[in-house]
Amino acid sequence: MSNRWVLSEYDVTSPYQQPAPFLKAAKQHGLSVTHTRLFGGRRDGVELLTVQNGEFSFTAIPTRGMGIHQAKYGTTRIGWDSPVEGPVHPQFVPLSEPSGLGWLDGMDELIVRCGLESNGAPEFDAESGRLKYGLHGRIANQPTEDVVVEVSPDGEMCISGEIRETRFLCYNVAMKTEIRTKTGENGFRIRDSIINRAAQESTAQMLYHINMGAPILGEGASVVCPVTELCPRNDHAANDVDTWSTYKGPTAGYVEQVYFMQLAADANGDTCTLLKSASGEQGVSVHFNVKQLPYFIIWKNTAAEADGYVTGLEPSTNFPNPRSFEEKNDRVLRIAPGATYEIDLGLQFHPDAASVAAIEKKIAGLTEGKDAKVHTTPQSTWCS
Amino acid sequence: MSNRWVLSEYDVTSPYQQPAPFLKAAKQHGLSVTHTRLFGGRRDGVELLTVQNGEFSFTAIPTRGMGIHQAKYGTTRIGWDSPVEGPVHPQFVPLSEPSGLGWLDGMDELIVRCGLESNGAPEFDAESGRLKYGLHGRIANQPTEDVVVEVSPDGEMCISGEIRETRFLCYNVAMKTEIRTKTGENGFRIRDSIINRAAQESTAQMLYHINMGAPILGEGASVVCPVTELCPRNDHAANDVDTWSTYKGPTAGYVEQVYFMQLAADANGDTCTLLKSASGEQGVSVHFNVKQLPYFIIWKNTAAEADGYVTGLEPSTNFPNPRSFEEKNDRVLRIAPGATYEIDLGLQFHPDAASVAAIEKKIAGLTEGKDAKVHTTPQSTWCS
Amino acid sequence: MSNRWVLSEYDVTSPYQQPAPFLKAAKQHGLSVTHTRLFGGRRDGVELLTVQNGEFSFTAIPTRGMGIHQAKYGTTRIGWDSPVEGPVHPQFVPLSEPSGLGWLDGMDELIVRCGLESNGAPEFDAESGRLKYGLHGRIANQPTEDVVVEVSPDGEMCISGEIRETRFLCYNVAMKTEIRTKTGENGFRIRDSIINRAAQESTAQMLYHINMGAPILGEGASVVCPVTELCPRNDHAANDVDTWSTYKGPTAGYVEQVYFMQLAADANGDTCTLLKSASGEQGVSVHFNVKQLPYFIIWKNTAAEADGYVTGLEPSTNFPNPRSFEEKNDRVLRIAPGATYEIDLGLQFHPDAASVAAIEKKIAGLTEGKDAKVHTTPQSTWCS
Repeated sequence: MSNRWVLSEYDVTSPYQQPAPFLKAAKQHGLSVTHTRLFGGRRDGVELLTVQNGEFSFTAIPTRGMGIHQAKYGTTRIGWDSPVEGPVHPQFVPLSEPSGLGWLDGMDELIVRCGLESNGAPEFDAESGRLKYGLHGRIANQPTEDVVVEVSPDGEMCISGEIRETRFLCYNVAMKTEIRTKTGENGFRIRDSIINRAAQESTAQMLYHINMGAPILGEGASVVCPVTELCPRNDHAANDVDTWSTYKGPTAGYVEQVYFMQLAADANGDTCTLLKSASGEQGVSVHFNVKQLPYFIIWKNTAAEADGYVTGLEPSTNFPNPRSFEEKNDRVLRIAPGATYEIDLGLQFHPDAASVAAIEKKIAGLTEGKDAKVHTTPQSTWCS
Repeated sequence: MSNRWVLSEYDVTSPYQQPAPFLKAAKQHGLSVTHTRLFGGRRDGVELLTVQNGEFSFTAIPTRGMGIHQAKYGTTRIGWDSPVEGPVHPQFVPLSEPSGLGWLDGMDELIVRCGLESNGAPEFDAESGRLKYGLHGRIANQPTEDVVVEVSPDGEMCISGEIRETRFLCYNVAMKTEIRTKTGENGFRIRDSIINRAAQESTAQMLYHINMGAPILGEGASVVCPVTELCPRNDHAANDVDTWSTYKGPTAGYVEQVYFMQLAADANGDTCTLLKSASGEQGVSVHFNVKQLPYFIIWKNTAAEADGYVTGLEPSTNFPNPRSFEEKNDRVLRIAPGATYEIDLGLQFHPDAASVAAIEKKIAGLTEGKDAKVHTTPQSTWCS
Repeated sequence: MSNRWVLSEYDVTSPYQQPAPFLKAAKQHGLSVTHTRLFGGRRDGVELLTVQNGEFSFTAIPTRGMGIHQAKYGTTRIGWDSPVEGPVHPQFVPLSEPSGLGWLDGMDELIVRCGLESNGAPEFDAESGRLKYGLHGRIANQPTEDVVVEVSPDGEMCISGEIRETRFLCYNVAMKTEIRTKTGENGFRIRDSIINRAAQESTAQMLYHINMGAPILGEGASVVCPVTELCPRNDHAANDVDTWSTYKGPTAGYVEQVYFMQLAADANGDTCTLLKSASGEQGVSVHFNVKQLPYFIIWKNTAAEADGYVTGLEPSTNFPNPRSFEEKNDRVLRIAPGATYEIDLGLQFHPDAASVAAIEKKIAGLTEGKDAKVHTTPQSTWCS
């Protein structure tokens, strides 16, 4: 091998120096962060921030709207193997392609935000036929401005930054994001503030596409949700509505099945869902508030590994239908001039049967004594 | 603050070394230039050239078609606060978006050129409905080739470079630009040469979108133009045609008003317009030649500050209508193979009442004894 | 000149260090390679690999799908002068432009691959009118992953890498490329492996657009092909079908003429075509296999030098018609899940009359005793 010259291995350059006081503060709490900038191929120029918190680590992508590329607990990966093999720099993601599907060229993350002006299926102008809203919007392919990492005196690290969707004369909404993890936490918490920077009312949508594959997803894995009402998105999903909460192993030719729902919550609106491995010994819970994110979507894509074996747990301000359908059904945020819409979202890893059982019990408590209304067909006001 | 790690402050790297003889020549005349390359966010990779000439300075953007980002006299900013908060790298400006409005994602400059193949409102193919010409063309989002900075023996600094709009088999027109400032000058002069590099006749359009906000623009500010003929672009502008030359303060919900005009000039064709502050103690004059730039547009956008409080003074080869309308009305340049169309444009700052009064008097002299024809409605050959 | 500050001359930075053993192995066989990264203008960020093999050298472009920018033998350039003046970074090539012609903004290379999902003329959705397949596909504007350069013990240098066309849920085909040259060789050989990375059958197309201008192309130059069947692409080409194999000098206003053909081959399927200078003292031969690349196209564009004086020799899996026409005529590759379609292509320079005569004789041998069927009009199953 001595005569090989390997050019574009996962090569990185680290343009930022971390100041000594910051390093010291982080180290004192057992935390660290690394900054890298990737080189070569479709990832050329992508910046990453990887946070290590004991056994738990995760990687945020400033270049891609501060999405979360993947997380890890020890050797357990939390994320999935997308055929896309990113992270892909936005310069190689043709959001403006007339088909409205260019977004799929970059879909690779554990958490990818869909918004802000729109999310969901592409929509075309009824009259001209031209693309109006591309699939899942622009926010995931906008780079982050003003990135800062801080450590608080009580051992909480916070990555923050702002992502802007600004078109002069047309749209001016930004998202300030803060991602926090505290010493000993096997997860992180996100606070996103959607800010209307314009001088008049503006609209927005937000969906968190939280994507996981093996090893947590596998044949016999299941999703635990405190459902109050549920329906399949289309006839294809309706065929298997009875098994909406359990997963197949990788299945060549599997066509995605999607279920729309609303969830029970505690008195504050806080709720939780769980992806549980087949053995029940590992799980990932997703925490949010139904006052902020009133809708929830399960995306099942248990396709062959080569095609992306994955499921999505998706808290959202709306269902991912074309935007005009959501507007008609009053599932679009209206934000006053200068006002902010706050969203809290947490992801926690459960490394053993006991912690999985505990969170499952908590979820069960949310629906105690309430019946879930499960529709066996798509509902006209939910599904376009 | 000692535990903060700030990553993407207006961070810069300077890849170019200025040779000692150049530095010495510049210093001897009280001139200097700095080169920076921005890092992070939507400005990632943008190069800037900032020229200092005594109290006066300005910043050119090689990465954005050598537009002028802003200028300064002492602490007075000449420019505006665009909600876009650029300069935005062209990789984040979706010129090809089917709507034709992607250009607005990057609009941020004091001077942004609109051209070369087209400028003005987007135009769609009549038959297929597909975008044919995006808003204001491509030149402002093309990077500059062969950038050079020189200092002449008599103390004039010149930044030059070439921007190309080349599509094999389709279009091959370039713009060589030279931007000059001389010791003691409170402004700069641009000479743009539009070069038809093809072996057959080619067409082109060029409009200089010169945008200014506070502090020069403000309630009671006015624009002084040696008008010979003027009309409002549409009915909305017609409503306020009586006050076309004066400005409101920032007004939430203000919808842009645009006036088209032709100007008087001296025997050589030289003319001048002036944006004057409410107090008359500051102003910016724009100098050009009506043989090169026969049309002039005032764009009033005195919207709320958050939405971009700004006016545009726009010398042009045409009106910013869809290109086919301009072609029909013979307002498209025709350039012979290998030939060049030259345009001179100057911007000068007037720092006190005396210099404002002097330039105002000069402008008044251009129309002495001539009546301006002010139409109160849009004219059919001027407005599409 | 001492007071000039030249910023963006063909400036380069070389981020990669070549390991000493590699350098030694290469040097021992009289080979070398340099890596550069261009800076400024439309080429900003483009990586190049230039291989020197005695008198012969060539430059590959990892950033542009590992196309070949140009080659050289001594002072003889093998390539052409495109008005585009690249290499252009893909960020400045608007592949997604609704017209489908954005690809032409980057066309500059000696060898540019057209594929993988499609090549040929743009195609629009019959119902919606929206762009479905842009001109000549995406592969030439995708950056290369996992670039490696090796030298074998017997003195063969190999550049390899992988280019991916991956859209989640839609398409997942990659091309592994290997480019080899051996001590003393006046050329190089490419092996491209088109890999279906999906779990179901996929389709692909591939055309090698091999473009050459002066000095080999010139008035009286000719192309030598072992034709079995040939037809003009359209009526315009039909007008000059008699002289399809000979070239005019640069001709202002010349409109491209294209000829479609199939070629004879030896028992293995190997065949060869030759571009021969007017004097017969220089030539470039293109080697391929008709089992892999069954179709061949001659593109004549002997326009004025300013417009790009060039001809294309184009071995292909199909004719460059809109994709649906090729599919109907069964000229689209079908690749099984996980399977690979291999293509070998060689380019060799012939520096003297003797070597030109030798390769010409070899080509003549392929058609000995066989008559070429030359259609004088476009054929309905070949030409859309």
